[in-house]
Amino acid sequence: MIWIGERINGLQPRIYKFILEKNKTAIQDLARKQAEAGAAYIDLNVGTAWLRPTEIMVWLVNTVQEAVSTPLAIDSRRPDVTEAGLRTCRNPAMINSTSGEKEKLDRFMNLAAKYEAAIVGLTMDEQGIPLHAVGRVAIAKRIMDFADTHEIPRDRLYLDPVVLPLKFSQSQGPVILEAVRQMAKEKNPPHILVGLSNVSQGAKERKLINRTFLTMAVTCGLDAVIADVLDSPLMEAVKAAEIIVERQPYSDQFLKEAKKEVA
Amino acid sequence: MIWIGERINGLQPRIYKFILEKNKTAIQDLARKQAEAGAAYIDLNVGTAWLRPTEIMVWLVNTVQEAVSTPLAIDSRRPDVTEAGLRTCRNPAMINSTSGEKEKLDRFMNLAAKYEAAIVGLTMDEQGIPLHAVGRVAIAKRIMDFADTHEIPRDRLYLDPVVLPLKFSQSQGPVILEAVRQMAKEKNPPHILVGLSNVSQGAKERKLINRTFLTMAVTCGLDAVIADVLDSPLMEAVKAAEIIVERQPYSDQFLKEAKKEVA
Repeated sequence: MIWIGERINGLQPRIYKFILEKNKTAIQDLARKQAEAGAAYIDLNVGTAWLRPTEIMVWLVNTVQEAVSTPLAIDSRRPDVTEAGLRTCRNPAMINSTSGEKEKLDRFMNLAAKYEAAIVGLTMDEQGIPLHAVGRVAIAKRIMDFADTHEIPRDRLYLDPVVLPLKFSQSQGPVILEAVRQMAKEKNPPHILVGLSNVSQGAKERKLINRTFLTMAVTCGLDAVIADVLDSPLMEAVKAAEIIVERQPYSDQFLKEAKKEVA
Repeated sequence: MIWIGERINGLQPRIYKFILEKNKTAIQDLARKQAEAGAAYIDLNVGTAWLRPTEIMVWLVNTVQEAVSTPLAIDSRRPDVTEAGLRTCRNPAMINSTSGEKEKLDRFMNLAAKYEAAIVGLTMDEQGIPLHAVGRVAIAKRIMDFADTHEIPRDRLYLDPVVLPLKFSQSQGPVILEAVRQMAKEKNPPHILVGLSNVSQGAKERKLINRTFLTMAVTCGLDAVIADVLDSPLMEAVKAAEIIVERQPYSDQFLKEAKKEVA
């Protein structure tokens, strides 16, 4: 599993306050903890509260880079904020995210090519989020075509079928799992990713729902996730799931071992 | 999920001792606890230690029937022991199990027809357990044909793809999930069931592996399981999984509510 740590997100009041107060120590502490927990990328979202979000993003990137060498995921819908972040990153970063709207796709894919970044493509477009798996897969194909045109290799492309809250859109549960399954069957498959916490929005048993949904998505071929990497039971469930589908070798100590792919 | 409670099994030393001492109280206590936890059937396995296993099975059925009205699963490979159990059951019971060997199939399907019992068919035969999903599905089809011939309706038929321990047969993990998926795609599908505890045999993290595997199997269409119904995290994970695939309606209180099917 490729884990993208979601904890540094300015939409959350606690993180907003850290950013407002330029509290480097608190941000760097969260970065370190996520890196130690196994994050392959640390997501950085400045939130929406700023007059000059590009400046905030640059500060956030620099702050986190001082503490860890883990690659960063620049989480913004704005190309200017995204580019400011990418330009500041020392390591190849991830763009989180573009959607399937053609103009946006073009602009963000250009950035991915220019900065040799990985890129997340949400399977939604001008018409919104398709209600059925087939519509999401059609947008996924468009995103893959754009990536090919911009010479983004498939291992830098992350398709995201767009998870909706079970509490308000329960019928989307099986739809998303089916979309994952179909996308993962591509001959030259990109990574398949979800933003996990959406699935339990508004629900009472958030961690149980997150964990169960992620396990089910792994069954369908998901191999990347934006999630709380500090949630140990979540990480443990995925470790067990990856052994069950033979992505990791079985060992009695599998909860303790560093990850290694099955040859 | 149709839960078959596995706890009364004479292969386990503790239960063997209860049976040996004719400890009705202990057996009935286990039966009551499993019924309260939501078992649709209570499995009864006398074990292999007896000169007259039919007498033991009759005692066990009577003992449990005194305590609960939950239907029973008569768990024996021997037709004579199975028939003694079925004859003693007040409620329609389950036969656990036949395999795909033609002679056995015929004999056990006759019992299922005679006693109006449900029946578990293991997808293995004279040649053993097929290594790949396609072989298991072929035996599943044979079992369905025999059930049809004996006029056993599909809702009384439970196909079991035969779970093997991950620790010793890791490559069987994806094979079993794929077999479940293919069996569940039948036009007039029977129930699909596994004997869960096998998957974690010899492993250290048994409950985590059981729970994760069961969640993944639900993703593929599994709807019945022989398992420890007193394992609350296992039950909770399945409740969440059934909401995610929309087999149960979402509710904030879903962990507390009695089960009701989505209309």
